[in-house]
Amino acid sequence: MTDVMDGPGATPEVVVPSVDVAPESQPVGWRHKHLLDVDGLSATDLDLVMRTADAMREVLARPITKVPALRGRNVTILFYEASTRTRVSFEVAAKNLSADVVNIAAATSSVTKGESLVDTVRTVEALGAQMLVMRHGVSGAPYLAAEVFGGSVLNGGDGWHAHPTQALLDLYTMRSRLPDGGSVAGRKVVILGDVLHSRVARSNIWTLTAAGADLWLCGPPTLLRGFEAWAGRGAAAGRRFTVTSDVGAALRDADVVMALRIQRERMAAGLLPSLREYAARYGLTRERLALAREDALVMHPGPMNEGVEIAADVAAGSQSVITDQVTNGVAIRMALLYLLAGVSAGSASGSAAPGSGAS
Amino acid sequence: MTDVMDGPGATPEVVVPSVDVAPESQPVGWRHKHLLDVDGLSATDLDLVMRTADAMREVLARPITKVPALRGRNVTILFYEASTRTRVSFEVAAKNLSADVVNIAAATSSVTKGESLVDTVRTVEALGAQMLVMRHGVSGAPYLAAEVFGGSVLNGGDGWHAHPTQALLDLYTMRSRLPDGGSVAGRKVVILGDVLHSRVARSNIWTLTAAGADLWLCGPPTLLRGFEAWAGRGAAAGRRFTVTSDVGAALRDADVVMALRIQRERMAAGLLPSLREYAARYGLTRERLALAREDALVMHPGPMNEGVEIAADVAAGSQSVITDQVTNGVAIRMALLYLLAGVSAGSASGSAAPGSGAS
Amino acid sequence: MTDVMDGPGATPEVVVPSVDVAPESQPVGWRHKHLLDVDGLSATDLDLVMRTADAMREVLARPITKVPALRGRNVTILFYEASTRTRVSFEVAAKNLSADVVNIAAATSSVTKGESLVDTVRTVEALGAQMLVMRHGVSGAPYLAAEVFGGSVLNGGDGWHAHPTQALLDLYTMRSRLPDGGSVAGRKVVILGDVLHSRVARSNIWTLTAAGADLWLCGPPTLLRGFEAWAGRGAAAGRRFTVTSDVGAALRDADVVMALRIQRERMAAGLLPSLREYAARYGLTRERLALAREDALVMHPGPMNEGVEIAADVAAGSQSVITDQVTNGVAIRMALLYLLAGVSAGSASGSAAPGSGAS
Repeated sequence: MTDVMDGPGATPEVVVPSVDVAPESQPVGWRHKHLLDVDGLSATDLDLVMRTADAMREVLARPITKVPALRGRNVTILFYEASTRTRVSFEVAAKNLSADVVNIAAATSSVTKGESLVDTVRTVEALGAQMLVMRHGVSGAPYLAAEVFGGSVLNGGDGWHAHPTQALLDLYTMRSRLPDGGSVAGRKVVILGDVLHSRVARSNIWTLTAAGADLWLCGPPTLLRGFEAWAGRGAAAGRRFTVTSDVGAALRDADVVMALRIQRERMAAGLLPSLREYAARYGLTRERLALAREDALVMHPGPMNEGVEIAADVAAGSQSVITDQVTNGVAIRMALLYLLAGVSAGSASGSAAPGSGAS
Repeated sequence: MTDVMDGPGATPEVVVPSVDVAPESQPVGWRHKHLLDVDGLSATDLDLVMRTADAMREVLARPITKVPALRGRNVTILFYEASTRTRVSFEVAAKNLSADVVNIAAATSSVTKGESLVDTVRTVEALGAQMLVMRHGVSGAPYLAAEVFGGSVLNGGDGWHAHPTQALLDLYTMRSRLPDGGSVAGRKVVILGDVLHSRVARSNIWTLTAAGADLWLCGPPTLLRGFEAWAGRGAAAGRRFTVTSDVGAALRDADVVMALRIQRERMAAGLLPSLREYAARYGLTRERLALAREDALVMHPGPMNEGVEIAADVAAGSQSVITDQVTNGVAIRMALLYLLAGVSAGSASGSAAPGSGAS
Repeated sequence: MTDVMDGPGATPEVVVPSVDVAPESQPVGWRHKHLLDVDGLSATDLDLVMRTADAMREVLARPITKVPALRGRNVTILFYEASTRTRVSFEVAAKNLSADVVNIAAATSSVTKGESLVDTVRTVEALGAQMLVMRHGVSGAPYLAAEVFGGSVLNGGDGWHAHPTQALLDLYTMRSRLPDGGSVAGRKVVILGDVLHSRVARSNIWTLTAAGADLWLCGPPTLLRGFEAWAGRGAAAGRRFTVTSDVGAALRDADVVMALRIQRERMAAGLLPSLREYAARYGLTRERLALAREDALVMHPGPMNEGVEIAADVAAGSQSVITDQVTNGVAIRMALLYLLAGVSAGSASGSAAPGSGAS
């Protein structure tokens, strides 16, 4: 795996595709058939995703946000967990590219055996799916799907494991909002909250440390278990990665503060005393935010529990880029659907390189 | 607020838009950004809605009921209450105008704080929604949404408060089916049933009395509470508005009888003895209907409890315009989406007047 | 009713439509307004469906699987029972023909009276539905719908009664995969499992015996009740139709083995001892399949309980055409929507023959 070098100008050889034409008609150097996690993406790959997303943001600024690039292709969205935000984001992204979208809401409970997931994926493909967006409660499920699906699989979140499009939209948001050209390298980025159960955190840890950020994970000790060992390994590999429950130390002079959603189920499991106590000790209030840099960005993957992990005035304040994250999510997903479709279509006509590894 | 003067020819200055072109390209005099209730609509506004709906009925009579007017625009339908009829009506209306439709079924139960609704609306807009159709169990929720949403909000029903598109399709149906040109002025219109819990009734009271109808509300005393005071205020303002539990007096010589849906929950609350007794005392049977004019129109907002508030033979009889109401609902919603889109698009490019008040 | 003579060349007069033009613009000899069951289809009808499906398979092999044939028409999919596979198959079929699709998931529980179903169908039509695909838990419900719906009704499965598109896709799959030109006449076809509760079995019995197959029904005696009498009547009419619980006799030298889904509810009803025992006695294992012809086709309507009615290695083995059935289902449904649309559209403009009977 290539390490990521972030920032503009890092990879001048990237050819940004023209989004108004079909993706397979232009060579842009994208080689991945699936998007299962971010850990297989090189610096050049990341740069291409970011620049393609720039082109998609331009489309989103038009009065009519629709281009014909994927006209007539079938994008099937198969979600085994309830979700509005991510599901609608993929749906809008696919429709903006003129694809036909099929939504399937499945209950994980009916999938008790691995064979059933494989059977479902084979059926969805036989029904016409050319690209498959999948969310599943079991970590690794999209990898299994990718083994049997003929087109491209996009991971829309699997268990606690990965949420690659979220990490990419977060990186894109930082690059477009941080001062001095947007490079993340050397910036202090804090992820605050329930890191343990968060696939958002896991995918962000990869992209941010790879991009050279000074990453801090902060939360109650029960919700950070196991991450100190990971941080140790990361440090050994030259990555900057600090794990702490000291919220003051974490927030001091931070460039970016990303609060994570607290889920009520964690209290039942004895990992949290109460929402009130969590808010009192770790909630991102105006007072705590004052410890960070004056122009620090406030982020949240949504949906928010306002008054718990983030105060309402912080969420709606001038430093918040939370709404921008949502729009960037549509642009990033348009970019990924576009780039993957070029490979899938080429693969269907036999001209693409064989898939190498998981992504 | 301007009072409504109903009937053809009342407002000759109305320019009916051509539905085959984009709405912002023609000046039709529509100035409202949102449709939250009917009480902000002037006589000219109502006339423009009715005439635009006429144009949409012509589209619906074509073999292919699709015009390109809103091609590529995102209409998001966010319903916090289960509904098939109204949801599908808006969906078909938007698709007939070539808009892209995103359906979101939300559970009210997960929205326990006003901030969450605001957060949801901001997210939906950031995901690309340009027009937002919303149904919510809490009266006033669409007003809150309109405060934060950049595009147009259409109220698809809020609590017991308002259901403006229903009142407009009811008015449209009367105007197209009543004799002598369709004017509602001076006609005896009876709303029969559970007026207390009905947003349909509340919105119809406004448009019908404003249009000069002789409006009668009839039902069990427990389901009319508070309306006598309203009728008194209306009479003081020159409106004709009678409240009674005497079903014979109400139906005698009526021009229009609109039965409302009875909900079983009302019995649990002690407001109704039993469905059987309700049907016996207030159900719209063939015998009761004989009290009205021979050509009186029978209306119902649906879905019907046949045999309770309306007899099956009355619902399917020659005086019933219930199915026509459904098709008119699609035409009215096409008209409103079309008219509002002209203002939203103009507003996006900075040329529209600022929003004044709620609608 | 005409008997079916299967096989290529049987009906040389069939004109296969060109799928790239609107269906009403070409005379192809199709006369049915609805598809409620397979028992009204003549040999010529079946041949036309099969050849039109061939044309649709060619569309499905294109990079973009979309033709404009039904552009702008409203296909409403009204399902009173949960289904992913059949619902998505119809949705993809309609979208491939460029129709607008409206999905309505209804709860049977709320439909307690026949009048309500009629009211729903009338409402759906008034909302714009031109073709209605319907699944309902009550046998015969689509026939009632067809009596009041102005356009075409397609039965997507009603109670234990019929699932005509499944039988047609099964016949199509056999014709395209059996050796020597695909004729089903004289082939030994085994339907294995819960025949009693299966609408798939009932519709297949009709098409397969009519096509001259040597049909065997096999399963536990409790799940075959009543079929021996049917078989006796069929034999009297010259049809080959054997009912047995002897799985060895059924599978010996079979050309086609179709396993049916076992539902857990049957055990609660005392009709089955346990899934384990069912699998041991009737499950389609590799050993049992060895009794059939070496090139026998393995079929299953899905979704499968792997390890119960069919072993995983058989389902995924070289003789399995299960995935092909799924794709053929899209082609068959495209063909039927196309053929029925020609009649509906003609009927709307007044030129078609009056409907004769149920289909």
